[in-house]
Amino acid sequence: MDFEAFFEQQLQSLKNDGNYREFAELERHRGAFPNATCHNGPGEVTIWCSNDYLGMGQHPAVLAAMHDALDRTGAGAGGTRNISGTTHAHVLLEKELADLHGKEAALLFTSGYVSNWAALGTLASKIPNCVVLSDALNHASMIEGIRHSRAQKVIWKHNDVADLEAKLRALPKEQPKLIAFESVYSMDGDIAPIKEICDLADKYGAMTYLDEVHAVGLYGHRGGGIAEERGLMDRITVIEGTLGKAFGVVGGYIAASSKLCDFIRSFSSGFIFTTALPPSVAAGAAASVKHLKNSRTERETHQARVAEVRARLDAIGLPHIDNPSHIIPVVVGDPGKCKFISDTLLKRYGIYIQPINYPTVPKGTERLRITPSPVHSIEDVERLVSALEDLWTQCELARAPMAAQ
Amino acid sequence: MDFEAFFEQQLQSLKNDGNYREFAELERHRGAFPNATCHNGPGEVTIWCSNDYLGMGQHPAVLAAMHDALDRTGAGAGGTRNISGTTHAHVLLEKELADLHGKEAALLFTSGYVSNWAALGTLASKIPNCVVLSDALNHASMIEGIRHSRAQKVIWKHNDVADLEAKLRALPKEQPKLIAFESVYSMDGDIAPIKEICDLADKYGAMTYLDEVHAVGLYGHRGGGIAEERGLMDRITVIEGTLGKAFGVVGGYIAASSKLCDFIRSFSSGFIFTTALPPSVAAGAAASVKHLKNSRTERETHQARVAEVRARLDAIGLPHIDNPSHIIPVVVGDPGKCKFISDTLLKRYGIYIQPINYPTVPKGTERLRITPSPVHSIEDVERLVSALEDLWTQCELARAPMAAQ
Ligand SMILES: Cc1ncc(COP(=O)(O)O)c(C=O)c1O
Ligand SMILES: Cc1ncc(COP(=O)(O)O)c(C=O)c1O
Repeated sequence: MDFEAFFEQQLQSLKNDGNYREFAELERHRGAFPNATCHNGPGEVTIWCSNDYLGMGQHPAVLAAMHDALDRTGAGAGGTRNISGTTHAHVLLEKELADLHGKEAALLFTSGYVSNWAALGTLASKIPNCVVLSDALNHASMIEGIRHSRAQKVIWKHNDVADLEAKLRALPKEQPKLIAFESVYSMDGDIAPIKEICDLADKYGAMTYLDEVHAVGLYGHRGGGIAEERGLMDRITVIEGTLGKAFGVVGGYIAASSKLCDFIRSFSSGFIFTTALPPSVAAGAAASVKHLKNSRTERETHQARVAEVRARLDAIGLPHIDNPSHIIPVVVGDPGKCKFISDTLLKRYGIYIQPINYPTVPKGTERLRITPSPVHSIEDVERLVSALEDLWTQCELARAPMAAQ
Repeated sequence: MDFEAFFEQQLQSLKNDGNYREFAELERHRGAFPNATCHNGPGEVTIWCSNDYLGMGQHPAVLAAMHDALDRTGAGAGGTRNISGTTHAHVLLEKELADLHGKEAALLFTSGYVSNWAALGTLASKIPNCVVLSDALNHASMIEGIRHSRAQKVIWKHNDVADLEAKLRALPKEQPKLIAFESVYSMDGDIAPIKEICDLADKYGAMTYLDEVHAVGLYGHRGGGIAEERGLMDRITVIEGTLGKAFGVVGGYIAASSKLCDFIRSFSSGFIFTTALPPSVAAGAAASVKHLKNSRTERETHQARVAEVRARLDAIGLPHIDNPSHIIPVVVGDPGKCKFISDTLLKRYGIYIQPINYPTVPKGTERLRITPSPVHSIEDVERLVSALEDLWTQCELARAPMAAQ
């Protein structure tokens, strides 16, 4: 077989479909984010698609903690968690995270992706005869974890508790059940009916596994996520989160009972057989979590900025998916057009919003996904909206009053 | 089902078998490594089981690059590689790694684990009818990647080219084949017959996938690994490595043809759907790779220190697995005894060597795995060997002249 020809042909078919991805090569400037230099683009740009939702990636407390940890302990952990790689910083961060979610314990992973993959994969494969009830729009990392477990999997309609109940009812009463879902779904920005799902979990004796990746740091009095905001943390068996989005660093975790965390710690390949995060990353993340437990300014300004962008888009009739979260998806519905708008925003206006195409979203729902942050100024918002207005006119894209959505 | 009781019972059975892991909580001190504070142990200890093989985790060039990147760009990347998370530092590091291995391109992942899982998983699942020929002692991350792909898998006897050839010969000539193996096997320290495997790959038209996680930075004129040392880099299709061991930071990568890397970049869930490494991590890793391309002192001192430890163990007849690498495994063969020796070394002598038990190594081969580094002094070596001598006497463990091994 000619392997190179095969790769070439596969890449060509992505290109033909308009789904070939080109990465913007950015250089952020501490203190100036959301501004950055785009090395393979027009130079200076404003980023409008970052998941550093609160700008914590440039927060002085986070950076100070990272500098300090580098100075004190050095660059890497030097081993897996078991073999010399557990540092004081990891232990402190796990305590911080357990406290954030009101759980007995937390367990760190190298990323949110790995935490979902490893935790779901281990739970579903080790619990005898476990069936996973998985929301239809769950993230790739959850899907892969469930797939990995080879456990029985039942997909329920996205955010649809009636369908979930029908699926639960159809299963044998004694079969161990795990309901896996997210709070904020990152591509549409809609939020799960967590309470109703927990009620069903109680009724049918299921465990609940909630991905709060796009909510931790952003919602709840101390940034514990939607489950905290709604007073439901104690009803969730496993809360999973990331340290790479609102917390601004990198890494992932679960928070749960001591026994559950110890079980994953002891049996999960994706936790065991990999170098631990650098202590400086753990220290930076802990500083970020701690800061956002005590400070509400970032969350409030964030929400205000989101509302501002929405109001201005409404004012010019630019359609966006209505949702209760901080994510503003503007659906273009065609990969080519989506890329054209994104390219033009970048080149002509210095505005960077990556087009979101398949496989991140279904074909036909290609979109610009706008993520305002507290560090975007009102002038940034004005420039964004006026650029979008120009382009919508130029591309003859449909406008709609929000009422028609 | 009572989930908590299930977890408890599973943990208890680990404990009964002596396989329950307790993590040492360490705090390394920059400049003083291999010394560290053990927060849940006796205080000051010398680490003898780190995979920061060369002490690059405290190298001034690495730390300066990380501080500088933090100052210039902030803490995190703020997104997946596609959605605002590709930074200049990532691109530079990928160039550095491609150059290290004499390949057209390289692709970064959040860890070596993820690079194996994602790259093998994608190649083996996407190449139609692919069969993976996997060395029997391959690392968990490779096994999981192959398992994930659901491709046909044929296991060949560890480092046994005759068996590999028999397996290759038995497969249909036209079936696409991928031979997956490691260079240095980290638990026994033995090294694969890379040239002979490449010869077979040529003969049977197979791709080769080589995990050099325990060799990059350590072997070869510029630290390109065993394949570089043996002049075989151009014969390997994919070289996989980590930035978390000899390079002292964290992260993983593959180096291969541009098309192959672009293919993985475009199709691999584990690459696409996760926050990119922080720019400071990428910058630190690049500085480490660059330094070890030009400096041979670390590698030479490392080898000298390994030889010193081996010679002294031989002198007191303390049996260790003979191998051509830098890893010195002292097999105890019983999880309880292994843990007792490790505990006593820690408590009484301030020497930290984590016991390596199941599932990292097969039951019955429990061991102490000693990893000397250039930053261990001759006095450190003396203290280690004399402590081991005491304990071997105390535990009435067998001694053997090396000849009897
Ligand atoms: C819902 C969801 N879960 C998990 C992840 C993975 O988290 P991380 O980026 O920390 O790997 C992501 C995105 O990256 C996500 O959107
Ligand atoms: C052979 C081998 N491959 C891959 C890995 C994973 O690399 P990382 O620690 O960067 O995840 C390890 C150990 O951790 C390993 O021993």
